[in-house]
Amino acid sequence: MDPHTHASVEDTKETGRIEAFSDGVFAVAITLLVLDLRVPHDIAEGRVLLAALLRLWPAYAGFVTSFATIGIMWVNHHRLFTMIRRSDDVLLLLNGLLLLGITFVPFPTAVLAEYFPRTGRHVAAEVYSGTYVVIAIFFNLLWRYASHRGRLLGKGADPHTVAAITRGYSFGPPSYLLSFILAFLSAEASLAMNFALAIFFALPSRNPLLRKYVSGG
Amino acid sequence: MDPHTHASVEDTKETGRIEAFSDGVFAVAITLLVLDLRVPHDIAEGRVLLAALLRLWPAYAGFVTSFATIGIMWVNHHRLFTMIRRSDDVLLLLNGLLLLGITFVPFPTAVLAEYFPRTGRHVAAEVYSGTYVVIAIFFNLLWRYASHRGRLLGKGADPHTVAAITRGYSFGPPSYLLSFILAFLSAEASLAMNFALAIFFALPSRNPLLRKYVSGG
Amino acid sequence: MDPHTHASVEDTKETGRIEAFSDGVFAVAITLLVLDLRVPHDIAEGRVLLAALLRLWPAYAGFVTSFATIGIMWVNHHRLFTMIRRSDDVLLLLNGLLLLGITFVPFPTAVLAEYFPRTGRHVAAEVYSGTYVVIAIFFNLLWRYASHRGRLLGKGADPHTVAAITRGYSFGPPSYLLSFILAFLSAEASLAMNFALAIFFALPSRNPLLRKYVSGG
Amino acid sequence: MDPHTHASVEDTKETGRIEAFSDGVFAVAITLLVLDLRVPHDIAEGRVLLAALLRLWPAYAGFVTSFATIGIMWVNHHRLFTMIRRSDDVLLLLNGLLLLGITFVPFPTAVLAEYFPRTGRHVAAEVYSGTYVVIAIFFNLLWRYASHRGRLLGKGADPHTVAAITRGYSFGPPSYLLSFILAFLSAEASLAMNFALAIFFALPSRNPLLRKYVSGG
Repeated sequence: MDPHTHASVEDTKETGRIEAFSDGVFAVAITLLVLDLRVPHDIAEGRVLLAALLRLWPAYAGFVTSFATIGIMWVNHHRLFTMIRRSDDVLLLLNGLLLLGITFVPFPTAVLAEYFPRTGRHVAAEVYSGTYVVIAIFFNLLWRYASHRGRLLGKGADPHTVAAITRGYSFGPPSYLLSFILAFLSAEASLAMNFALAIFFALPSRNPLLRKYVSGG
Repeated sequence: MDPHTHASVEDTKETGRIEAFSDGVFAVAITLLVLDLRVPHDIAEGRVLLAALLRLWPAYAGFVTSFATIGIMWVNHHRLFTMIRRSDDVLLLLNGLLLLGITFVPFPTAVLAEYFPRTGRHVAAEVYSGTYVVIAIFFNLLWRYASHRGRLLGKGADPHTVAAITRGYSFGPPSYLLSFILAFLSAEASLAMNFALAIFFALPSRNPLLRKYVSGG
Repeated sequence: MDPHTHASVEDTKETGRIEAFSDGVFAVAITLLVLDLRVPHDIAEGRVLLAALLRLWPAYAGFVTSFATIGIMWVNHHRLFTMIRRSDDVLLLLNGLLLLGITFVPFPTAVLAEYFPRTGRHVAAEVYSGTYVVIAIFFNLLWRYASHRGRLLGKGADPHTVAAITRGYSFGPPSYLLSFILAFLSAEASLAMNFALAIFFALPSRNPLLRKYVSGG
Repeated sequence: MDPHTHASVEDTKETGRIEAFSDGVFAVAITLLVLDLRVPHDIAEGRVLLAALLRLWPAYAGFVTSFATIGIMWVNHHRLFTMIRRSDDVLLLLNGLLLLGITFVPFPTAVLAEYFPRTGRHVAAEVYSGTYVVIAIFFNLLWRYASHRGRLLGKGADPHTVAAITRGYSFGPPSYLLSFILAFLSAEASLAMNFALAIFFALPSRNPLLRKYVSGG
């Protein structure tokens, strides 16, 4: 089917399949987060149950932050695949690494939910932010591989938009690394920063660094 | 791609993607509800097992009510997106909030299943109905944002149908709020009301308040 | 959109949406079955672990039988929707009841896995077969409602094929009822019968009762 | 609809439906793997938590290997269905067996995660590799049935490509059988071999045995 050495296939059906499978994984992973919320057991009195439910706030905060982060990554994954039009083995591999990171998120979220209220909170926040450092790196690898000299992009891809996305995404790894380092000082500040980053990456058109990407530059 | 300041994109493919992802989340969330049904352990005798399974009736009632509520919200989400034809950042955010609410439902359902047969039943029913108050508000925000002055609707959207939907949906938050208040008096009545509301919102064409919406007014 | 009192919409996009959502629910429910397989804990020696894993055979048998049954129901659901071309509120409701039954299956499967090796085996098998009785009834309700006088079928639906499907499906409820009654006498025989029924309904073209349906009569 | 005795239907919509359902099952199964990662409980001190998380490395190794294996099987399943263009009952059954194997994977992965650090490691690795032997056999059965004399392939299927796929896939069962036998000697070596096999089957175009398949030979 393909005479090129890289086995790249100019085929939107091909990237459409990758997108559909990735969407399924994103949707399942984002919904599994609720399993990290554990019902408190063996509570005999109503007011105590309410207090116990409220004491789960770090679990709720982790749930909301992970939900926002996976959701934003889904949005950005889709945005990239409006530009990526061809596929090859390396893209499949890099997309697989990204999905591996996404499916892993419920685990550090569960660690955070269990250990944030205790002395293990720093380790929990480090593991949590560390996961996002790795995912952000995988995201950049995917995009840089696909966009390098327009390798897998559609023919009409605007170089300014491509450069704007590359610039915007390059903020991901150092930002999450900062949050990872912050976790050693304050678990609360690190979690708050992760939440803020999800909002930051959620609103490209309000965001001077990313605006060019959305507005088509 | 888009010269407007709001980055709205007249693009059914865009809303199609949001719908497909949302459908995935609805389908997973509705199926995860079964995990809230816990097999009773360590029962030595058949008749006792049967009795133990029957004593789980609040868990079954919660399962059926949550199933019906998520199912009805899926139906209504789809109905809205037959009218919503464009997407922007705010719509993505509001849809994300709605999905956050939907993926959260298995947790209050689990709380209800565990504490309904005990003294914690009022708190469990309050948390359960309270979740639906929030989801109903998110639903209204989504629709009102999209439909305000026809912001994100298709060109052929009939103003009477739009007004009928807005009117019908405005019953959601106060109805669930009533159920929330009812939970302080009677957990059973609150749960029954939630179930009745799911049926009410399920059958728009049998329902004088909503009929105009389905019949196209 | 629709001048008819029943709000039926001649719209394959409408039924396509129902199918896509139902497919998602079937796919998640069939995959969640694996969560009913519980790793035996705290075993210190390899040979004992192997024995413990082999002793889980009722859990594996339930897993395979439930997998086969949900799988076959997915196949048949799809076959029905190649003929059902319109949708209305009642169809949505009946399809919702069917999906409610499908998403419930992992629970009786878990009961079977836990109590089959013990004195509770008869109750477990009754609950398991009883679930399938209810699902088979919902399946018949869905088909009979949609096909009654061709209510929601496509225009080209062949009356002989419709009659053959109705005849074939009418075997479902009494067959599972027989398996339910059998469970009082022998849990093993009931489980074996459920497995045989899945095979029976899996192979319509090899099956004289159903052949007309597949061969197009 | 079909005058042939085998009820085969030349219908890409038919195979499209099988693909879509299979994709859903693959996506859910690959995401459920994270549930095999269990948060260590009741740890009072941060450094001990970090050590406990690091001691879970066999669980992470199993997670990554199972993720890679299911991911690669998804890629190959899709590749086969670019050639398989018709469907019949036997294909549905063989595809069902393959999906049964895929949905089962989280269980042996959980056994591996729990028993790899203990004396049960050989049994755990045998069960794990044994599962892949069975899945590889199902994969070959599916392909050989569909491709035998071009039974269910599209008209344009190139015989050299078909033969190259058959040759490449025939390495699966004996390779996993070798890994199964290896598990009796060294659980570590067996797990490493499973991971290597996932990489081997991931990169057909870099792989002399499979290159013909991708390059269209």
